Amino acid sequence: MKLYTFPPAPNPRRLSIFLEEKGIDLDTQVVDLMAGEQFSQEYRAINPCGTVPALFLDKGVLLTEVVGIYSYLESTFPETPLLGADNLSRAEILSWDHRCFVEGFQAVAEVLRNGNKAFSGRALPGPVAYEQIPELAVRGHQRIQAFYQVLDKHLRGRQYMVGDSFTVADIAAWVFVEFSGWVKERVPEACTALTSWCERTKARPSVQLKS
Amino acid sequence: MKLYTFPPAPNPRRLSIFLEEKGIDLDTQVVDLMAGEQFSQEYRAINPCGTVPALFLDKGVLLTEVVGIYSYLESTFPETPLLGADNLSRAEILSWDHRCFVEGFQAVAEVLRNGNKAFSGRALPGPVAYEQIPELAVRGHQRIQAFYQVLDKHLRGRQYMVGDSFTVADIAAWVFVEFSGWVKERVPEACTALTSWCERTKARPSVQLKS
Repeated sequence: MKLYTFPPAPNPRRLSIFLEEKGIDLDTQVVDLMAGEQFSQEYRAINPCGTVPALFLDKGVLLTEVVGIYSYLESTFPETPLLGADNLSRAEILSWDHRCFVEGFQAVAEVLRNGNKAFSGRALPGPVAYEQIPELAVRGHQRIQAFYQVLDKHLRGRQYMVGDSFTVADIAAWVFVEFSGWVKERVPEACTALTSWCERTKARPSVQLKS
Repeated sequence: MKLYTFPPAPNPRRLSIFLEEKGIDLDTQVVDLMAGEQFSQEYRAINPCGTVPALFLDKGVLLTEVVGIYSYLESTFPETPLLGADNLSRAEILSWDHRCFVEGFQAVAEVLRNGNKAFSGRALPGPVAYEQIPELAVRGHQRIQAFYQVLDKHLRGRQYMVGDSFTVADIAAWVFVEFSGWVKERVPEACTALTSWCERTKARPSVQLKS
């Protein structure tokens, strides 16, 4: 199998942490988003969505969504389970991964893509050119703050997002917090549970940024 | 366990079809979204998100995301698998379920919630009051049309969204098509693969609307 990715971007980042935690080393090709390589004819022939990450499987199938890539890799490399070791944990982890995507990642993306000239005509990922909507940048900031509160409330009395081990729910929440820094947001001091959890998470080898 | 739902709404509808396909009958309480019951103190004490569906488990855990509810119910009631019978199918099904949510459901919701006075101050689901952004209604229509094309292209030469049986990927695509009708969109005639798949899906007992 072959992974197409651009490590600094938030969805690729989720997958990088997942791979580090599990100790998986994949054949990898970098698609440089800063150079617009995702729009190249060559990459669009591989992934018509023009998004990363994408995992091309030996069976000829391309997986373009992180949740699908997680699922496939977890079943192929079951050691160090990150999608839950039992049915209830798995359900909660998938739920939190989804919430972090919709309420967290999408909020940051709204700010970044609608409030920054670099994303002019690229207000949404994918092949269609959508114009920016400046009100979305404003709303995105509000949503980021609201989601900090959601995470803080959830993390009170908890060591991890779900159960008693690090999972993709922690990865999602962590990458949301990191990504929110791109638009100059930060966890409020009053969010003490989220702040403590961030401190613990930040110490994990898997989340260290590679130079 | 107990299910809180409002069958006509799109996310509850996904779950209703899932339950019908698997022949699962749950203790169910209707939360009438038309009457604003999701904002009642009583329901917010159960689900602070104020969203449906939500599944309250005997273990005291509340699942608020369809993907998590699917996962839990599939492991509890494994007969008639709808999340894939093998690892690769499962990865593809989760991917398509996610894409239908992000590219399909959210596009329709953008139109509905931003282009309709009934949703004034409720441009996003959940407890925070976000004002409407009329440009999102316009963009939502474009996105619905784009996603019809994505589905049509994917369904060429296929009987089902993934593999050779009906799964939650079909449920997601079907409920997107139904939901798009709420905002007066319809599958273009040129989308013959999607149209044929709709005809086949429409004939399933599980998708018949209850009177």
